Amino acid sequence: MPEWNNLDTMRSFKLLKDAPKVSVRREMAGDKGADRVKSCCVPMACGLAYNYAAQPVNADILEKLSALADEAQLAEKYAELYSGGIINTGEKRRVLHQLTRGQLGSDVIIDGVNKREFYTAQQEKIAAFAGKVHSGEITNEQGERFTTVVQIGIGGSDLGPRAMYLALENWAKANGLFKMEARFISNVDPGDAVNVLKSTDLARSLYIIVSKSGTTLETLTNEAFVKDALQKAGLNPSRHMLAVTSETSPLAKSSDYLAAFFMDDFIGGRYSSCSAVGGAVLTLAFGAEVFARFLNGAHAQDELAMNKDALKNPDMLDALIGVYQRNVLDLPCTAVLPYSQALSRFPAHLQQLDMESNGKSVNRFGKPVNYPTGPIIFGEPGTNGQHSFYQLLHQGTDTVPLQFIGFKRSQTGVDVEIQGTNSQQKLCANVAAQIMAFACGKDDENPNKCFAGDRPSSIIVGESLTPEALGALLAHFENKVMFQGFLWNINSFDQEGVQLGKVLAKRVLARDTDGALKAYSELLEI
Amino acid sequence: MPEWNNLDTMRSFKLLKDAPKVSVRREMAGDKGADRVKSCCVPMACGLAYNYAAQPVNADILEKLSALADEAQLAEKYAELYSGGIINTGEKRRVLHQLTRGQLGSDVIIDGVNKREFYTAQQEKIAAFAGKVHSGEITNEQGERFTTVVQIGIGGSDLGPRAMYLALENWAKANGLFKMEARFISNVDPGDAVNVLKSTDLARSLYIIVSKSGTTLETLTNEAFVKDALQKAGLNPSRHMLAVTSETSPLAKSSDYLAAFFMDDFIGGRYSSCSAVGGAVLTLAFGAEVFARFLNGAHAQDELAMNKDALKNPDMLDALIGVYQRNVLDLPCTAVLPYSQALSRFPAHLQQLDMESNGKSVNRFGKPVNYPTGPIIFGEPGTNGQHSFYQLLHQGTDTVPLQFIGFKRSQTGVDVEIQGTNSQQKLCANVAAQIMAFACGKDDENPNKCFAGDRPSSIIVGESLTPEALGALLAHFENKVMFQGFLWNINSFDQEGVQLGKVLAKRVLARDTDGALKAYSELLEI
Repeated sequence: MPEWNNLDTMRSFKLLKDAPKVSVRREMAGDKGADRVKSCCVPMACGLAYNYAAQPVNADILEKLSALADEAQLAEKYAELYSGGIINTGEKRRVLHQLTRGQLGSDVIIDGVNKREFYTAQQEKIAAFAGKVHSGEITNEQGERFTTVVQIGIGGSDLGPRAMYLALENWAKANGLFKMEARFISNVDPGDAVNVLKSTDLARSLYIIVSKSGTTLETLTNEAFVKDALQKAGLNPSRHMLAVTSETSPLAKSSDYLAAFFMDDFIGGRYSSCSAVGGAVLTLAFGAEVFARFLNGAHAQDELAMNKDALKNPDMLDALIGVYQRNVLDLPCTAVLPYSQALSRFPAHLQQLDMESNGKSVNRFGKPVNYPTGPIIFGEPGTNGQHSFYQLLHQGTDTVPLQFIGFKRSQTGVDVEIQGTNSQQKLCANVAAQIMAFACGKDDENPNKCFAGDRPSSIIVGESLTPEALGALLAHFENKVMFQGFLWNINSFDQEGVQLGKVLAKRVLARDTDGALKAYSELLEI
Repeated sequence: MPEWNNLDTMRSFKLLKDAPKVSVRREMAGDKGADRVKSCCVPMACGLAYNYAAQPVNADILEKLSALADEAQLAEKYAELYSGGIINTGEKRRVLHQLTRGQLGSDVIIDGVNKREFYTAQQEKIAAFAGKVHSGEITNEQGERFTTVVQIGIGGSDLGPRAMYLALENWAKANGLFKMEARFISNVDPGDAVNVLKSTDLARSLYIIVSKSGTTLETLTNEAFVKDALQKAGLNPSRHMLAVTSETSPLAKSSDYLAAFFMDDFIGGRYSSCSAVGGAVLTLAFGAEVFARFLNGAHAQDELAMNKDALKNPDMLDALIGVYQRNVLDLPCTAVLPYSQALSRFPAHLQQLDMESNGKSVNRFGKPVNYPTGPIIFGEPGTNGQHSFYQLLHQGTDTVPLQFIGFKRSQTGVDVEIQGTNSQQKLCANVAAQIMAFACGKDDENPNKCFAGDRPSSIIVGESLTPEALGALLAHFENKVMFQGFLWNINSFDQEGVQLGKVLAKRVLARDTDGALKAYSELLEI
């Protein structure tokens, strides 16, 4: 059994803090820089690679990071997790999202149920259902085929599946694998549901209600909103609605649904894209084969994350460099910058994944930690961000570490050549240029035009954004966040910080308030 | 003429730094908290109000902030700006975006042209053109009406207009004022254009090419992309394309366009939503009357920003409290959290507005400043964010100041009642609850369930998100950013930090690279 200790108690962390710092600007200049780009590269699954040439590390720092990985027993803790240990100490739960996409170690059997088989069975059930929808065996009451699927969920039931759908929409269309349009309703703001319902054909839409507990306020409210709209249109909601939930939830056995697919307590919302939460909508949108390819990519990355050698384990190394930035270099934010419009909502998903997992102040034993934990994550796709907030990243007073993502080829192959290069080449030229501009900066007589450089970044480079590559990318970040949680000795798998707001909101709605809460209720005329 | 001095040279700033700190948790408890909610409220234009009850300020801090506003001559500097002074010192330009929406001081005449009249004339030209499109006087070659308008622009030509369009789309539909659907192409990633072109009817779409200089790489590339698609569909691009540009740009006099509308060098991209950049697409989408109402709201807010009394000037006070958070309390980020799905892209617009304006390290005379300037801005609409990154905001190791926005009534009036309350009430209950959860926290025996509180926020409350309210909201943040730039003594109106990346990207495309830049080009197979 691994030992769980705070980061600042580890000998290797103290050595890391004392190690001489590295100047990215100096390391990345000249031939040495070219060598770094070639050597600081760790293969990932599905043709991806993690390149950390522009990070402030050298052989000495890397050796100490590697020692930290060993001392913190990162590989052992990962094995403990995928073997069914109670990693989520706060809620006393196992953490099994990796099993939704493959078998990593020995079987995990809980109450006589093999969990891997349970997750696979749900995927098969979804595949069979989606096949019938696509073939026209399951239709609406008028015998018409369903053309649209609307996911109703919030947080992990929304951001991950939505980001994955957008990531593969163009790809599926270009490859003749697009089955149904997907839309998403998340916010309790009635404007969200109104907008989706006004721009889709109710009669030809399926609605997936996604809530593990079956009690999420926003989701139940939006379910009622949609039911109301269906009934007003003379349609029978139970012919249009599906549920994705846990077997013990009130949604599980309701005759209100055409079908129900299950997840369980061992899949956290923000880790649920590979479970039925992502599976139902993505399989309906793109077919079971595409979803299986996505899972295969994620599993292949999970396997690479098992490598005990941190310098050959891209997920572990990315995690370690992130902790170095956060706890040694004192940098509080990280920007995620995919040079891919298809990944437009991937940063929003990572924002939840990372900030909800590691935005904690107490360790897994409930004791306050003495060091910063999870950073602020934000980002937008490049090149858009270049014309927006990059000004601050280049010339602001604060240094923000950057996580770039880029692909050699476009998803669809459709492109135009202008001034001798096509759009995909321009896109790639921009990400290469930005990494160097951030790393090395530029001196200038005019102080307005000076760039200090020394702004660190890494890039994940892929061939093209396929389902496999997307799965690997997702798993990489899930594993990175997990390893960072291990390093900080926190529980990355609960989210007690969301509870207080829920309790107070209920009190407002029940008119059970006083003091400032009552005054705000009056201000907002609730 | 006002004097321009660095923040840390001001006597009132030193007094502010030494003033005793205020505990939000203590101030917001009990009856005192209720009193604060009522008294810490400054009216804005169009029924909005800026409420700063949950900010760490008291009478003493407010007095010192007010003295700082006086010493920094904020009102005088604003007057200098709207009267046509050379505020953008780096580029030696005037800053006149306020004149696009009203006359604040005396006429600004440049080279014999009254600038207010110039901007008004462009709006009238757009209104006349849009009227002909809406009436069917201007059609495609087949005599069919145009149904869709596609804006092709990036950065300020994209984020602001897109955010404003999304903000009013549902409202316009609910009020019978929706004229045309708008779509946006920004990224040089070919996937962006492919996605829009595949999901719109080319023959019935107008395309607006938006580039002040007429040389923006992404925009010209996407223009060529669209032209290519039109030609392949047997359509004449010049019957479908419009330009918004400066009079001196290569786009200005081209016969390639059905019409051209003009802006000028005195409107920065991120301040251009009220110029032809936002005007063309918004007037086509919603009609001239709605756009005029939006401008009226912005102008009304601009007028309030003239108030020399900082405590009665919501834009100035918001700016001052932000500087207090940044430079006295050392908080590097701000989250923008609109409880309105219609404002889903408003945080992305503010991210550009703020970070591109104030992410600077040298003052307006080119000397390095000794203090942090513009913060990192990020955000997503509530309640969505509650199920995502709020965990870190509540229980993470770092304090992030929060800027909430909420409306008493929904935009469309369409709603459903569940468990005794409708969705809009649930939305408002959540924002009220969150403010209090952040401010006062909660003690608990279980350290996992403890909330430290003392996490400051403000809220802008409005009646409903109308065109007027949206204009006032936009102007509020533009003015806030401007006042903060004055306080930091930086030039908020240039963006030299975006240049180096452009230069290096051109070198990559010209195969004129060596060292690490060449190695990255090879890695990405450009």
